Amino acid sequence: MRIDVLSLFPGMFEGIFGDSILKKATEKAAVTYNVINFREYADNKHNQVDDYPYGGGAGMVLKPQPIFDAVDALKKEEGSTPRVILMCPQGERYTQQKAEELSKEDHLVFICGHYEGYDERIREHVVTDEISIGDYVLTGGELGAMVVIDSVVRLLPGVLGNEDSPILDSFSSGLLEHPHYTRPSDFRGMKVPGELISGNHRLIDEWREKESLRRTYERRPDLLESYPLTDRQKAWIEEWRNSK
Amino acid sequence: MRIDVLSLFPGMFEGIFGDSILKKATEKAAVTYNVINFREYADNKHNQVDDYPYGGGAGMVLKPQPIFDAVDALKKEEGSTPRVILMCPQGERYTQQKAEELSKEDHLVFICGHYEGYDERIREHVVTDEISIGDYVLTGGELGAMVVIDSVVRLLPGVLGNEDSPILDSFSSGLLEHPHYTRPSDFRGMKVPGELISGNHRLIDEWREKESLRRTYERRPDLLESYPLTDRQKAWIEEWRNSK
Repeated sequence: MRIDVLSLFPGMFEGIFGDSILKKATEKAAVTYNVINFREYADNKHNQVDDYPYGGGAGMVLKPQPIFDAVDALKKEEGSTPRVILMCPQGERYTQQKAEELSKEDHLVFICGHYEGYDERIREHVVTDEISIGDYVLTGGELGAMVVIDSVVRLLPGVLGNEDSPILDSFSSGLLEHPHYTRPSDFRGMKVPGELISGNHRLIDEWREKESLRRTYERRPDLLESYPLTDRQKAWIEEWRNSK
Repeated sequence: MRIDVLSLFPGMFEGIFGDSILKKATEKAAVTYNVINFREYADNKHNQVDDYPYGGGAGMVLKPQPIFDAVDALKKEEGSTPRVILMCPQGERYTQQKAEELSKEDHLVFICGHYEGYDERIREHVVTDEISIGDYVLTGGELGAMVVIDSVVRLLPGVLGNEDSPILDSFSSGLLEHPHYTRPSDFRGMKVPGELISGNHRLIDEWREKESLRRTYERRPDLLESYPLTDRQKAWIEEWRNSK
């Protein structure tokens, strides 16, 4: 997979692409990253990339020309029809399902604005996907792009080894993870539940199933609406409901 | 505000804290960042920070000791009772409201695991807030911490200047932003809407109000449920509903 990022702050990506699993993924040749300062594509004297909004008002708006030209150049260079992703608060809410969809592509291009608005013609004629990572305001699209890239790259074949076992994959089973414990069994008087150190695998499995369900019931009951509960699980939920 | 981050991959933060508005915020003395590799706090021979889970299974679990000791040291150094934030998929969904709440604190500590699980005693006895930035799986808590930090720091007094006008603040008005346009008025045959170049401010304001509502209606109808619609706005929605 090839990933291109258009950003006015390419330095923000250095620590991310140079460390951790995103770096390991390049070493396994699963992915190449390319961060482009689209100011280089501005065809005016001062390399200006934004301008005042038509109709007046505060703030600046990213001009269409530098972004159109940068994306055109990437398409030509790669001979591809990439997904062109705009990070913005008005975009579709990002989900694990979307991560899986994007992980099947060969070429992704991310457009990151930075507190400016985007000229609407960029949205209409260049962009294929508008994505928002959540209902909060960030100073730019860069962090959102990093989040999407991280979630996509970890799904590429060969990127996660056994040592990076996806223990945090709360959303793949449909329930939240059960609690975890490791040594010591008594830390400053705080003890590990007896079931987990019982050596009895039936007991351990039941404890985990129950605690996973409990956590989902308490924190994210919305996930249970589409979850196929067994009779035993229904009985546990009934028990918690009555004990309130 | 003081922000401490506990991470096994401190290098990931270099590009973020060293660039853009997060850096500018330190220059204005609004905030200091401190990234701590909590491996330094491991009291065992090999500086081991994780261990096998009780009860068996794949993956590793972060041990309580290094994190308890690191947070204790920070509290002692600063003489404060910080909010201690754990980034995890089971946490409460992050929102702009939470960003505003956190921006009023003096001291935030972020705990970032990296594909390992967390020993439950960390959640129960050290952590004050568990936060998830969305329903997708990331390789670690670092990107989530950066997202939270970015959204909080931009709210600190004096951080955003006039030049960084929050044009993207879709969530503060309750509606999504209307489209923006800048020069040229005709780019490769793609034209700016006539209202915006009319010079008539009544027309411009009406166009913006209508397009902001239209975008919200089309993309995020859930936001309209709690929005106090005017009669004119109700009529527009009726019109769109009938034209389907």
